[in-house]
Amino acid sequence: VEAWGIRRVRSALRAARKKDHSFSSGEILGSMCTAPHAIAAEAHALFLETNLGDPDHFPGTTAIETELLEDFRVLLHAPKKAQARFLTGGTEANIMAMYVAREKTGKTEVVLPEQAHFSFEKAARLLGMTLKWVPSHGGRSHPGEMAKAITKHTALVICVAGSTELGLVDDVRAIGRMAKAAGVPLHVDGAFGGYILPFLNRPSHDLRVAGVWSFSLDPHKVGMSTIPGGILCLRDGSDWDYVAVETPYVSTDKQTQLQGTRPGGAVAAAWAVHRTLGDAGFSKIIDRCMKLSRWLAAGLEKKGYELVAQPDLTVVTFRAENPVALQESLSNAGIRVNVVPRFGAIRIVVNPHVTKAALQKLLDAL
Amino acid sequence: VEAWGIRRVRSALRAARKKDHSFSSGEILGSMCTAPHAIAAEAHALFLETNLGDPDHFPGTTAIETELLEDFRVLLHAPKKAQARFLTGGTEANIMAMYVAREKTGKTEVVLPEQAHFSFEKAARLLGMTLKWVPSHGGRSHPGEMAKAITKHTALVICVAGSTELGLVDDVRAIGRMAKAAGVPLHVDGAFGGYILPFLNRPSHDLRVAGVWSFSLDPHKVGMSTIPGGILCLRDGSDWDYVAVETPYVSTDKQTQLQGTRPGGAVAAAWAVHRTLGDAGFSKIIDRCMKLSRWLAAGLEKKGYELVAQPDLTVVTFRAENPVALQESLSNAGIRVNVVPRFGAIRIVVNPHVTKAALQKLLDAL
Repeated sequence: VEAWGIRRVRSALRAARKKDHSFSSGEILGSMCTAPHAIAAEAHALFLETNLGDPDHFPGTTAIETELLEDFRVLLHAPKKAQARFLTGGTEANIMAMYVAREKTGKTEVVLPEQAHFSFEKAARLLGMTLKWVPSHGGRSHPGEMAKAITKHTALVICVAGSTELGLVDDVRAIGRMAKAAGVPLHVDGAFGGYILPFLNRPSHDLRVAGVWSFSLDPHKVGMSTIPGGILCLRDGSDWDYVAVETPYVSTDKQTQLQGTRPGGAVAAAWAVHRTLGDAGFSKIIDRCMKLSRWLAAGLEKKGYELVAQPDLTVVTFRAENPVALQESLSNAGIRVNVVPRFGAIRIVVNPHVTKAALQKLLDAL
Repeated sequence: VEAWGIRRVRSALRAARKKDHSFSSGEILGSMCTAPHAIAAEAHALFLETNLGDPDHFPGTTAIETELLEDFRVLLHAPKKAQARFLTGGTEANIMAMYVAREKTGKTEVVLPEQAHFSFEKAARLLGMTLKWVPSHGGRSHPGEMAKAITKHTALVICVAGSTELGLVDDVRAIGRMAKAAGVPLHVDGAFGGYILPFLNRPSHDLRVAGVWSFSLDPHKVGMSTIPGGILCLRDGSDWDYVAVETPYVSTDKQTQLQGTRPGGAVAAAWAVHRTLGDAGFSKIIDRCMKLSRWLAAGLEKKGYELVAQPDLTVVTFRAENPVALQESLSNAGIRVNVVPRFGAIRIVVNPHVTKAALQKLLDAL
């Protein structure tokens, strides 16, 4: 590579970034990610060089991570012996849940509902595990169907708190009861809903439910933190030992994450967002997103669009004759939505960066 | 969590960061990581919200990634059909090399030298593969010993270009010939040495060597970019298809990385460092680090310390009667080194942030 002057590098970076769509412009309406909070960006920059894979060099960042993981234990109403880990996202969280379950049970079969995220497919192939996909009813897992699929070879049952396609939330209490009765660990994939559900008036979905063995959620989605950030909390923290690997030349004895070098920046960012917003701040933002979602859903129905489902969370989906063509024509009008092929639908995610004006623009364009 | 005022959050962040040691203070002498280049920090901040897992929203960042991956293909002298991927670090690169090899060959045995990184242990357990550790001679892999360990069940042979403990570089050409003759793919773990070797007058170690099937290196180490950053380049890019998973609701058809949501910030950072320094800038920095390493090695010997090995790259290791106690006493003097338990040694990594003054301080303290 040839060396450029710093000004040429800077202007090329800015030009590339200009070609991107952005959260702040109000264009992106179909992404599960959102703009990081300003304090997240600030914290990430301040902790950019820190490596949590070698914590003795970074005791300040390590203390921040300890506090952050305790935040999640409390948020998820997990018992004292529970332990969360900061990972690179929802995919690593799902991989680790399946990996720990495989090592703990010595079994390789996983029972999961049809709306579970494609990362479980990634995890299964990587781990040599078998997925038993179970049909759902109305986009939500059915405890009876799940129970029927469980055998003596089942290592793990999975349910979803905020599905990627429709944003629907499973009845975690009913599935938890079922899993407990069957004696099989239950993982709740809350990558999307994990930061929303605690701030709604909804039945328990987290580690208050006795049958729930593990729960995942993503700071880099509704958590308004920076990429990469995913959390997996295990009810019994000692279960992490099943996947611990000895680390001979860094300042820890063992690692339980996939990464060796780990970004302290993303950890500090999530910690800073938690303390800046607090539960009250999150409540306010989630409440606004929920209201906008209902408003959008009503507006779509008024225009004659058929919703795939009434929104449980902040995902609104409606059927379109040719969703790919509609996506493209909306994109040309500066409105970025995603397609959900399985339902022939367009998906809007009313994330914190989404404005009422942007949703009005969408309604006007339709 | 309770909401704090933004000023309290900021001052708590600064206080935590102050408890950390830092690269820029000159304290950290034992880490394989280094301070990110200023342009890396700038680029990371500018691209902080971008998600390469959903590239249609971020065509500018996607173009940057395409150029960056081509940089690596050229740096590693890989053929046109080669394809690199941007991953979360050296561990994911090693996991993916073993994973692709397992899927491609249908075999599960991996032959690797005793100095290979502990991440291969992580990968093997995750992937259900078996590691056959082979004794090395003088810290470097021995082609004859490696050849003896290969059986008809061998999926992959591994060698190391810059070992974590001693920074030693295998004879990649000899091992490449051996692997080629045996008909087994060879992965070169260049996580540390991959950014150093191209700028030294050394025999070919990369994809010029016919037997080399894959090569990994880490932008977040000597590449002076931000965490997380790892590269795996496969000689035949179509081999990535062995691990491709379909992605139904984002703007790609397939993913071959472990992550779903992927940080564009780290990609833009590595791209910006490449263009700001260019090959000439990297050469200059590497040359300085190499000279300092030799100077430190000579200084240690003059003081009567026994080097574990003469430095191949920018890692200097010396024996100590009680390395843990010595590490601690040095730490109290503001000098942060790492211990290499297997050799009863102290490890210094003369990374770009390390100054002659800091090394002189170490020599004076000994």
